[in-house]
Amino acid sequence: MTPPPSDSPVGTLHILGVGPGDPELVTLRAARILGQAPAHAFFAKRGRTGHARSIAAPHLNPAAEELRFEYPYTTELSVEDSRYAEGMAAFYDSCAATLAGRLAAGQDVALLCEGDPFLYGSAMYLFDRLRPRFPVEVTPGITAMSGCWSRALAPMVHGDDILSVLPATMPAEELAAALGRCDAAVVMKLGRNLPKLRAVLDALGLTARALYAERGTMPGEVILPLAERDDSPAPYFSLVLVPGRQGAR
Amino acid sequence: MTPPPSDSPVGTLHILGVGPGDPELVTLRAARILGQAPAHAFFAKRGRTGHARSIAAPHLNPAAEELRFEYPYTTELSVEDSRYAEGMAAFYDSCAATLAGRLAAGQDVALLCEGDPFLYGSAMYLFDRLRPRFPVEVTPGITAMSGCWSRALAPMVHGDDILSVLPATMPAEELAAALGRCDAAVVMKLGRNLPKLRAVLDALGLTARALYAERGTMPGEVILPLAERDDSPAPYFSLVLVPGRQGAR
Repeated sequence: MTPPPSDSPVGTLHILGVGPGDPELVTLRAARILGQAPAHAFFAKRGRTGHARSIAAPHLNPAAEELRFEYPYTTELSVEDSRYAEGMAAFYDSCAATLAGRLAAGQDVALLCEGDPFLYGSAMYLFDRLRPRFPVEVTPGITAMSGCWSRALAPMVHGDDILSVLPATMPAEELAAALGRCDAAVVMKLGRNLPKLRAVLDALGLTARALYAERGTMPGEVILPLAERDDSPAPYFSLVLVPGRQGAR
Repeated sequence: MTPPPSDSPVGTLHILGVGPGDPELVTLRAARILGQAPAHAFFAKRGRTGHARSIAAPHLNPAAEELRFEYPYTTELSVEDSRYAEGMAAFYDSCAATLAGRLAAGQDVALLCEGDPFLYGSAMYLFDRLRPRFPVEVTPGITAMSGCWSRALAPMVHGDDILSVLPATMPAEELAAALGRCDAAVVMKLGRNLPKLRAVLDALGLTARALYAERGTMPGEVILPLAERDDSPAPYFSLVLVPGRQGAR
């Protein structure tokens, strides 16, 4: 990568959180930048629109250049396979090089991220690669969990409560230990782990408080007591909420 | 409270997160509701404008009725004093009665909340009281922690990382145990607890990663490595971030 000539200013990389799904849950700041940026970039799975791109659609500058970064794998390769990490690193290198070309030419680019960029977001891999060379600004977004507990009308924490956000992929004993030590929890990466999670919550006496949320703030939203959810695999946009506080004071 | 006549519709209570401080970090949905609501309500300390009210100011319907709920105590009474809990309960009862009057008359009311309403927000006490009688809609807001880690350019968690949000008021041993068991942490309620928190982070080898953030996204914002922050008491709008992830992959 050739550095820009010292007399021409480089562009700014705007990493934009676009929120949990409802396009009206984008911030004014993100909407302004989306409407102005001469280029925007987003990740998408093969054959899909890209979730962040769908959320941002009503707010995009129609004249902007569109950079689509298509993940090289969906399920062809296990994440445990060493080729997966190598392939993903090469993919992120390539995305960063594409963005660097625009930024070095003095063009601003908006990188769209579902939820909040720095909370479990793929944008972090491009941030790591581009931050040493270009100005970066990050616009926070409404997280998926905030979207879900708002739609569920479930107050989560108050006072000195401890909140933990953890993956259902943990072994049952670790999950039980972690859930037993916090007042409220958000459990992500449900996938095929609902039976394990349910058994742990049952043992802790927490199942009655737990809520299942799928596609929160989006079309097809499902929110129901975990007790009413069967054990079939949960899709990507799902989580379990364990609210910490109980009623009025 | 007299229930509304069954032939007249009641109003909706809109509990609105207005984000961490920057008025541009309000969502489009919150801005729309703020511009339309015939009445809005907010909490404030005695003699102060009210933080949520300040953030919302550019977006408010100028013709709306304004309901100011002034906390009965600032520091006159310790939170451990039994009169504190009683006084606060009476205060929230009174606020809820005021809102119920408007809602029963068929008027919508917007209740303004800094950050996200269901994450450590006072609005939960009015939600508890009004939810059984009136329709309530909750609009999530950008949390203070998201505002701070975005401004700090500090990616927090990725993959299967565990994030914990906890108060610095915990005893040192419990704080050490909790911080030792997560990948990333947000520590709130710093107050006079910085020396204790620093000792705990030092013992865990985490001080070099920790960041201090004060008034994130607001005028007077301070963000610096915790190692460069002295031990003087920290103001209300401050927190410590311990990012979980380290560099590019």
